[in-house]
Amino acid sequence: MRAVDIIMKKRDGLELAHDELAFMVSSYVNGSIPEYQVSAWLMAVFFRGMSARETADLTTLMLNSGQVMDLSGIAGPFVDKHSTGGVGDKVSLILAPMVAACGVRVPMMSGRALGHTGGTLDKLETIPGYTTRLDQARFREYLARDGFAMTGQTDAIVPADKKLYSLRDVTATVESIPLITASILSKKVAEGAEALVFDVKCGPGAFMKTVDDARALAKSLVSTGSAMGKRIVALISDMSEPLGCMVGNFLEVEESMDCLNGKGPSDLMELSYRLGGWMLVAGGKAKDLGEGIALCKEAITSGKATKLFFDNVKSQGGDVDALVRMYGTRRSAFARTLVSPADGYISSVDAYKIGLAGVHLGVGRNTVSDPVSAEAGFVFHKRKGQALRKGEPVATVYGKDEASIDAAWPLVQSSLCVGDSAPAAMPLIIEELTAL
Amino acid sequence: MRAVDIIMKKRDGLELAHDELAFMVSSYVNGSIPEYQVSAWLMAVFFRGMSARETADLTTLMLNSGQVMDLSGIAGPFVDKHSTGGVGDKVSLILAPMVAACGVRVPMMSGRALGHTGGTLDKLETIPGYTTRLDQARFREYLARDGFAMTGQTDAIVPADKKLYSLRDVTATVESIPLITASILSKKVAEGAEALVFDVKCGPGAFMKTVDDARALAKSLVSTGSAMGKRIVALISDMSEPLGCMVGNFLEVEESMDCLNGKGPSDLMELSYRLGGWMLVAGGKAKDLGEGIALCKEAITSGKATKLFFDNVKSQGGDVDALVRMYGTRRSAFARTLVSPADGYISSVDAYKIGLAGVHLGVGRNTVSDPVSAEAGFVFHKRKGQALRKGEPVATVYGKDEASIDAAWPLVQSSLCVGDSAPAAMPLIIEELTAL
Repeated sequence: MRAVDIIMKKRDGLELAHDELAFMVSSYVNGSIPEYQVSAWLMAVFFRGMSARETADLTTLMLNSGQVMDLSGIAGPFVDKHSTGGVGDKVSLILAPMVAACGVRVPMMSGRALGHTGGTLDKLETIPGYTTRLDQARFREYLARDGFAMTGQTDAIVPADKKLYSLRDVTATVESIPLITASILSKKVAEGAEALVFDVKCGPGAFMKTVDDARALAKSLVSTGSAMGKRIVALISDMSEPLGCMVGNFLEVEESMDCLNGKGPSDLMELSYRLGGWMLVAGGKAKDLGEGIALCKEAITSGKATKLFFDNVKSQGGDVDALVRMYGTRRSAFARTLVSPADGYISSVDAYKIGLAGVHLGVGRNTVSDPVSAEAGFVFHKRKGQALRKGEPVATVYGKDEASIDAAWPLVQSSLCVGDSAPAAMPLIIEELTAL
Repeated sequence: MRAVDIIMKKRDGLELAHDELAFMVSSYVNGSIPEYQVSAWLMAVFFRGMSARETADLTTLMLNSGQVMDLSGIAGPFVDKHSTGGVGDKVSLILAPMVAACGVRVPMMSGRALGHTGGTLDKLETIPGYTTRLDQARFREYLARDGFAMTGQTDAIVPADKKLYSLRDVTATVESIPLITASILSKKVAEGAEALVFDVKCGPGAFMKTVDDARALAKSLVSTGSAMGKRIVALISDMSEPLGCMVGNFLEVEESMDCLNGKGPSDLMELSYRLGGWMLVAGGKAKDLGEGIALCKEAITSGKATKLFFDNVKSQGGDVDALVRMYGTRRSAFARTLVSPADGYISSVDAYKIGLAGVHLGVGRNTVSDPVSAEAGFVFHKRKGQALRKGEPVATVYGKDEASIDAAWPLVQSSLCVGDSAPAAMPLIIEELTAL
C-alpha cells in the first residue's frame, strides 16, 4: 500500500477502505510516512469530505491509537458533555456536579483556552490548590466518590489526534466536518462515556459561524457517534453574545457557583438545564427531557449540586475556604469601565470581539504555552436588549496589567452596539438532534 | 506573512498576490517553511486552480529561483520545442537539426525516460561517446557552431521546480494545469528561447488522456507564455498509437536518421514538418506555416539537416563512424515476434501498453535512477489500419534479456487489437493554438 495512491483516491472523490484509512493513521503515528503526505491527504479530505462509514472508521482508528479510560468496577451510567467552544461558556462546571447529583457519572476530560475561546482547565486551576492533572487511579477514585472528576487529556489518550491536530492547525485543514468529528469523538469515546451530549455552538463567537455549518457538524457527530454504539444528543446553541454575565477564569468559577445556587443568569441556567436534562435522558435516569430538567432543577434547589462541586474541589486538592473567601472579591487591580456611547438599547455584544479582547487581557492565549491570568475578564452590568443611558456602565473590564487593557480596548469598544429600539429576541437553543 | 494564511486563502478560492506566491516559492527553496505546508498548498491549488496572473507569477518566480542560460553574443532567433511526452516520440532529434538548417537556433534542454514515456537524453546517449552533460561554455559553443545543442537540465536551472516536482510526485498533486504550466514554462524560458512550440500529446499514451485536458494545458501554456513576453504555439497531437515504427533508445536514433533522410514514416514526417514549420514562423524565418513547412522539407531534401545532425554528434563527442556502422544492425540478441492472432485489420496498437511494456524491456524506467538499455525496443512491421493474416508478424520485440520479454509479453499482446474492417482514420494533429 502506498500513501500517494490513497491521497490520489481521496483527491479523486472515491471512498477509502478501512485498511487504507488504517494505513494512513498507523503509518503517521509510527512515523513511517512523511507529514507532507499526510497534509496533502488532509487537504484532499477537506475538499472531498468523507462518507459516514469513513468518518466512523477514522474515529475508531484514532481512538485505538492510544489508551481508553478503564471505568470497570465503577457503577455507571457514564455520560459526558462536549462543547465546541465559546465565550463565557462555563457550563461544564455547573453541569458535572448537577448531573452527578442525579446519579449520572461524568468522566470529564476538558481542554484549555485557545484563541478567543475559554478552557475549563484554566478556569478550574484558578481555585487555589486545585489540580487537573489526575492519573487514572485518582480519576477513577474521585469519579466513584463524587460522581464526577475533571481532568486534562493525557498523552496516552488518542495520540493520533494530537499529531493530526497540530498538523491541521498549520496546514489550514482544521475546518473539515469529518476531521472535526473524528477528533472530538475519538477523545470523548476514549473517556469511557456510554452516552454523549454535544453543545455545537453557532454564531460569531463560535467555531461554526452559520447554522448550516453547525447543523452539518451536529449531524456528523450524531451519526458517527451512534455508528460507534453510543447514545448521542447534539444541541445547536447560539454563540452571538457571551454566555452569562461574566467572562474570565476565576470570574467564571464565581458565576458557576451562582448557577449552582440557582442564582445564575437566565441564559446560562436555561442552557445548563437543557444539556443536563438530555444527559439524564441519555444516561437512562429520566424518561424524557421534561423529567430530566425537573431532576436537574431539584439538584440545584436541594443544594446537592453545590455540595458535590465542593466535594470535587476538595478531592482535587482545592482550598474550599480560600475559594469561598475569594468569591466576589478576587479582581484584578487593573480595571476600566465600558460605558454606553448613547441612549438606547444594547442591540448586541459581539462574543467574538470579547473573546479576542480577552486574549489581550489575559483570559485566553494565542499559543498553547502562553500563561493566562486568573483575575482578568469582564463583568457585564447590562446585556443585549436592555435599555441604557449615555455614559451608563455596561461592563467592567479587568486586565493582567494596564497595557493589556489598552491593547484590548478598541475591540472592547467595538463589541458594543447600541441601537434606538430593543432588538428582536433570538432563541438560545436553535436545534436538537438525538440518537438515543 | 504566514504560510498557513496563504494556504487558507487558496483553499477558500481566493487569488494569491505576487508577494504571497513569492513567499511560498522562496521559503520553500530556502527551507524556511516545512514541506507539509507546501504539499497542503499544492493540494489546495489542485482543487482551486490559479488565475492566469497567478500562473504567470508562479512561473516567473520559479524561473528566477535559479540561473537563466546566457545566450548573449550568439545570433538568434532562439526557438525550442517541448513535448509533454509520448511513446516513440523522437521528434526532437529530427526537429533540432532540421530547424537549425533553416537559420533558427535551438537551445534544447531535454529530459529522461520516466514511466511509459521516452526521454531524448537516453536516446542520444546510445550514440557511442555522445555526452549530454554540457557546461554553459560548451553549450554556447555548439549552439553557435551547429545551430543547436542538446543538454540535460542542470541543478542551477529552476531549482524550485526540482523540489516542487518531487514533492508533487509523492503527494498526488502532479495533475494540475497551472502547476504543470509553471513547471514546463519556467524550465523552457530558462533556456533562453524567445519563442516556444509545444506539442501537447493527447490520448491513452499521453499524460493528458482527453482532448479537453490537453486543450486546457495548451491554452494555459499559450496564455502564460505570452504573458511572459514569449511567442508561443501549442499543437495538440494524438498519442493513441506509438509515433513512427520504432520505439526504443537506439532504435529511435535510427528512425530519426531515416526521417532526416526523408525516409521516415508518414506520421513522424507530418508532425516534424508541422512543428518545424511553426518554429520557423515563431522565429521569424517564415511568414506563414506553409512557407515554414516548405523550408523544412528543403532542409531535409538538401541533406543540410543530416549534415547538422552529424556535426552535432561530433561536437558532443559522439563517434559518427560507429553510429553509421551500428545503423540497422544494433539489435538485442533477445527478441520475440508478435504475430497477428487473426485475419483482419489492425484497429489499434495501444501506445500506453507499449510504453509500459517498454519499461519491462529496458526502454524506460520506473524511477529516475534505473538504468535503461540501448538495444531494447519495438520494430513495428505493420501499423494501425493495415490488413494482415493470422500469424503474420506485427512487430519484433527486443528485450534487455529473456525474462524482460516474458514480463512485457502480456502487455505487448494485449496492446494489439485486430478487427474485421479497417478503422476510421484519425487526424494526428488535433488543434493548433498560437500567440505570435
